[in-house]
Amino acid sequence: MSIKVGVVGAAGFAGIEVVRCVLGHPEFELIAATSNELAGKRISDLYPNFLGCTELEFSSHEDAPLHSCDVVFLAVPHTAAIAQAPALIDAGVSVVDLSADFRLKDPAVYEEWYQVKHTATDLLASCAFGLPELFRDDLEALAQRRSAGEAVLVGCAGCYPTATSLAAAPAIRAGLAGNGPIVADAVSGVSGAGKKATERTHFCFADENLEAYGVANHRHTPEIEQILGIEGRLVFTPHLAPLDRGLLSTVTIPLGDVEVTQEKLDALYQEFYANDAFVCVLTGGRQPKTASVAGTNRAHVAAVYNAHANVIVATGAIDNVGKGAAGQAVQCANIICGLPETTGLLSIAIPA
Amino acid sequence: MSIKVGVVGAAGFAGIEVVRCVLGHPEFELIAATSNELAGKRISDLYPNFLGCTELEFSSHEDAPLHSCDVVFLAVPHTAAIAQAPALIDAGVSVVDLSADFRLKDPAVYEEWYQVKHTATDLLASCAFGLPELFRDDLEALAQRRSAGEAVLVGCAGCYPTATSLAAAPAIRAGLAGNGPIVADAVSGVSGAGKKATERTHFCFADENLEAYGVANHRHTPEIEQILGIEGRLVFTPHLAPLDRGLLSTVTIPLGDVEVTQEKLDALYQEFYANDAFVCVLTGGRQPKTASVAGTNRAHVAAVYNAHANVIVATGAIDNVGKGAAGQAVQCANIICGLPETTGLLSIAIPA
Amino acid sequence: MSIKVGVVGAAGFAGIEVVRCVLGHPEFELIAATSNELAGKRISDLYPNFLGCTELEFSSHEDAPLHSCDVVFLAVPHTAAIAQAPALIDAGVSVVDLSADFRLKDPAVYEEWYQVKHTATDLLASCAFGLPELFRDDLEALAQRRSAGEAVLVGCAGCYPTATSLAAAPAIRAGLAGNGPIVADAVSGVSGAGKKATERTHFCFADENLEAYGVANHRHTPEIEQILGIEGRLVFTPHLAPLDRGLLSTVTIPLGDVEVTQEKLDALYQEFYANDAFVCVLTGGRQPKTASVAGTNRAHVAAVYNAHANVIVATGAIDNVGKGAAGQAVQCANIICGLPETTGLLSIAIPA
Amino acid sequence: MSIKVGVVGAAGFAGIEVVRCVLGHPEFELIAATSNELAGKRISDLYPNFLGCTELEFSSHEDAPLHSCDVVFLAVPHTAAIAQAPALIDAGVSVVDLSADFRLKDPAVYEEWYQVKHTATDLLASCAFGLPELFRDDLEALAQRRSAGEAVLVGCAGCYPTATSLAAAPAIRAGLAGNGPIVADAVSGVSGAGKKATERTHFCFADENLEAYGVANHRHTPEIEQILGIEGRLVFTPHLAPLDRGLLSTVTIPLGDVEVTQEKLDALYQEFYANDAFVCVLTGGRQPKTASVAGTNRAHVAAVYNAHANVIVATGAIDNVGKGAAGQAVQCANIICGLPETTGLLSIAIPA
Repeated sequence: MSIKVGVVGAAGFAGIEVVRCVLGHPEFELIAATSNELAGKRISDLYPNFLGCTELEFSSHEDAPLHSCDVVFLAVPHTAAIAQAPALIDAGVSVVDLSADFRLKDPAVYEEWYQVKHTATDLLASCAFGLPELFRDDLEALAQRRSAGEAVLVGCAGCYPTATSLAAAPAIRAGLAGNGPIVADAVSGVSGAGKKATERTHFCFADENLEAYGVANHRHTPEIEQILGIEGRLVFTPHLAPLDRGLLSTVTIPLGDVEVTQEKLDALYQEFYANDAFVCVLTGGRQPKTASVAGTNRAHVAAVYNAHANVIVATGAIDNVGKGAAGQAVQCANIICGLPETTGLLSIAIPA
Repeated sequence: MSIKVGVVGAAGFAGIEVVRCVLGHPEFELIAATSNELAGKRISDLYPNFLGCTELEFSSHEDAPLHSCDVVFLAVPHTAAIAQAPALIDAGVSVVDLSADFRLKDPAVYEEWYQVKHTATDLLASCAFGLPELFRDDLEALAQRRSAGEAVLVGCAGCYPTATSLAAAPAIRAGLAGNGPIVADAVSGVSGAGKKATERTHFCFADENLEAYGVANHRHTPEIEQILGIEGRLVFTPHLAPLDRGLLSTVTIPLGDVEVTQEKLDALYQEFYANDAFVCVLTGGRQPKTASVAGTNRAHVAAVYNAHANVIVATGAIDNVGKGAAGQAVQCANIICGLPETTGLLSIAIPA
Repeated sequence: MSIKVGVVGAAGFAGIEVVRCVLGHPEFELIAATSNELAGKRISDLYPNFLGCTELEFSSHEDAPLHSCDVVFLAVPHTAAIAQAPALIDAGVSVVDLSADFRLKDPAVYEEWYQVKHTATDLLASCAFGLPELFRDDLEALAQRRSAGEAVLVGCAGCYPTATSLAAAPAIRAGLAGNGPIVADAVSGVSGAGKKATERTHFCFADENLEAYGVANHRHTPEIEQILGIEGRLVFTPHLAPLDRGLLSTVTIPLGDVEVTQEKLDALYQEFYANDAFVCVLTGGRQPKTASVAGTNRAHVAAVYNAHANVIVATGAIDNVGKGAAGQAVQCANIICGLPETTGLLSIAIPA
Repeated sequence: MSIKVGVVGAAGFAGIEVVRCVLGHPEFELIAATSNELAGKRISDLYPNFLGCTELEFSSHEDAPLHSCDVVFLAVPHTAAIAQAPALIDAGVSVVDLSADFRLKDPAVYEEWYQVKHTATDLLASCAFGLPELFRDDLEALAQRRSAGEAVLVGCAGCYPTATSLAAAPAIRAGLAGNGPIVADAVSGVSGAGKKATERTHFCFADENLEAYGVANHRHTPEIEQILGIEGRLVFTPHLAPLDRGLLSTVTIPLGDVEVTQEKLDALYQEFYANDAFVCVLTGGRQPKTASVAGTNRAHVAAVYNAHANVIVATGAIDNVGKGAAGQAVQCANIICGLPETTGLLSIAIPA
């Protein structure tokens, strides 16, 4: 069995990482990687890491044999997925979307934060949210529908929402949170700013620098709130730090009228992720390090009871392009294709 | 006029930066730089940036002519300053201490967080806290006492407390904070972990990595609470990122029953720091960048009104070894010596 | 079939990368990873990238079941391999040595450069040099002997010799080099300096810094000369640059009385490596980038005809810990075990 | 006395560093900083390191009061200096040009390497080469002419030529070089690639990467050959490494029929630079580190006798934007203005 796969927007950081995952995947066959800008060029001309690994060329969106695919990954900006997903679904091609277009369940919220009307609300209603550790049932329901012949759609979680939610979900779902703001300060590597060459992504400006951005208005805010069910309570502040790939989210959760100990907290987290191959819970004072998961689909999380101020400080480390984008998309694709969730995704990060 | 200066613990990162500041200072003359480990070696043998700038050798603490100094900087671990400051003061030498020994006004708090008894409580009572922008009057009072012939002591603020307090103080002092935890997530360059070669400071472990540390128990917690008057309310979580020098603190302050607008907030901050040469307030959506202050004694701060969750997100960027340690110590020394506060400290960061 | 494998010196950078390669290898089973210092600790306690991947603990050299292994990798300092290899061979265990002990064919050269007597000269005579692209026949001869029941020994090439020789060998073996010095200036990431925490490997000293080291006396000099057959003619100058893993060697080869064109040179190189899965030749002005091979066993090489000074400038990029150490060791192990050379080694670098 | 200064092309990396040098210079007054693209914006809006240091805005080239300047720095691409210098000189304004336009004495060589005709050959004949340590007399002759009322022109050395020549000149000028190619392999930080946001300068492509570029055809080749008088013998290969500012050149010089010892070599170098405040010679096995001179106008050099291959390996470290561009330009301006050469340029690098 070989599942035919296409990647739309393959030249960007998320798209090209999907390409890398697919090339190393034993059940997926890459038959199209699109980039209008680079159509006709070999992938390995732009990304020489693929030299000797594939001879495939980028094709234009128009010319790519996307309708011959079993699954297409959309690694495109928001609105572009709304424009492209319906036709693919109609053609019987299942879609795993890495953009923001199918993440927010309420079109009004989408329209508020993205300042554009959602024109594929039917698909929005029928798609599943692509964060398997927290919404696996929904994805497995898609697998059922797909095996029954239906083309299905996954709207994958964003990078910050993935790290933040994996860190906070066990505590939040256990009802430990009291009133007041929940604060997520997250730090990302520069790949999070995308492949476009700008002043922000210029080495000499990003190197040896730390800065916050998108303060008070980053679009991942409503997505995290939706995942965790904490609407209107999240203070989300993203930052850039001088590394390529890696994302650490530190979430401070005020405690309600509950009795917490570090031991209970550790047990809660370990139980929560007991069946998740990609999430490791660190205990005993150990803290997640992004380097330990760089280049992989893994996540490391920890939760510390801060008795001084009666809060939980939960931390989550991922590779923003891996578990935060491409790896997670492939994980979702595995699920909807009925494959073991970990297929092709068990590489180990470089020791550090 | 030339003020004779000594640096104790000159081989560490803070101490050697004091040496650099003093060598570039028009009124200070460096007559001693101590390091028991490196005594007899030229400073420029260990730190070749000083080649051609000074022929001075490190001396042992014992042999250094510290009692001939007008001012001695102590760049030593905590407890070592308690051990050394009294004799210097008794000998008529004013002391600017960069350690934690004279920061916490209440010896009981010191003993709780540092797990050691404070044995110089008299000095603790008479010293001033070295964060001029927030406690300038106290430092100027020392200048009066010193010009009257008294040897005086400054206990300089720590790096995280400096950035965090400069970011939060205008809002806190204006009474904007409501109830609930105040969350400071701060990120430091690796120089903050000190000069000792350890696994944490090894390039291959620190590079391309983000991690939190000292979660729920970092000793800067009570210091920040004392500065801001928010005892028991601070959640302080420090992080390491892969850069040499730079520290960014992001402080989330829940709002009380006050009406805030971005315009008022900007005006409040600009007025607060109107007379501070080293602090710039960024407005109009601009965020502080650590690269813009690296190698200097400057601080950049901004405050954003986050209406979504009704909080203020205040950010402060400094060089942890500059304004967070050595630069600030020299600034304090300038004040107690009756010099213009900016003397020798107006260098501009490398453009970035 | 499962081949039992042990790693001696598993806590160092090369050893732990062998562990990573072996854990991802479909035919190898890791049964021992030794570190006297860390015996009894889980590998994932020291290297959290292995969390969820292995529960194995480090064992002491003494307690490890090395004699039950089919192949043991020695990732130890020089002299330690001389001390340990003979007993393993005697016990019927084949050895892949990553140290310098079995690289130099002439014990006198070893003794001159390493300043210690070689006490296993019999093994030295019977072992093969571990750089498959240039000495594959010798390694396949070992495979024959091993399949006949003999325990065999491979002395793997060093990191600088690997990159330098892969870059220069096609030109040198084709007889293009004229008289005069052959100059190899090579730059390595900091992992090349080893896991020991020193001033050289401290982030704050290595970051944002370039420097040469080992000028005129680096021990890889005679090894490169032996590989290329250029005894007494090599000027080898290694440098450190601020990255974790990656090594680029730039080799300037004076031309003899031969007619060279860029086209001929490209053809020569492409033909030379036509059957080598791990070596890609870049042409058309493209230059090897270490990022394109980081974390892998791949090498990228290019050769440019510099008509201005009548020389060839050949460049080779590898991951110093991958193709320069652990990956190459596993590649050699594959060969002596009769496996396809690429087994377990075909991962693709992160796109960059 | 205040010398009025303008900077043309002030928004680029070299130009903005000239601005920084001028703002910290006790005798220079910055009256114009031009950038057509950014005209009307505050310098500190683009480069926040200047916040609180200057309120100056960029002006367009056309509107800038350049003719009111005593000295104008041209930090422009090649050909632009040829276009602009003559009018300034005619207006009585002395010019310090950082571009390549006035470096090569022979217009034919310029035209060969830059593929454009030189249209200001009169100025080329009368200007001086801006590398004071090697051509101080020529610059002092300009000072004489300028003090006699003439407007004069300096064509400053490039970054690679500066580091390479400072490293090699003492040996070359002493006649130690024998026949055969002289090989300069140099490594630069990414600022050397300029401020333009491109794929090469994108953090995610430059980070954790080493690569050669401009192999066999870099335009600094003839400039270095001219400085050292080694026409047709230089193999110059530049490389990029992941740091912001810093440049290390390693020059391998084959020895002629001369007797060299390390002691003689050290003495030769120390004597050569005995009167140069900005150049330090490292001996005793110490090697130059770029971090030791970053942000300054200093250079560190060393020369090692490699007896194995009978060559000298000379190394030179500079800040490519400092001594390699802006600092050197200000040093030249000091000389032609009759000021002490070190005025405003004695800052010390951050300890490392």
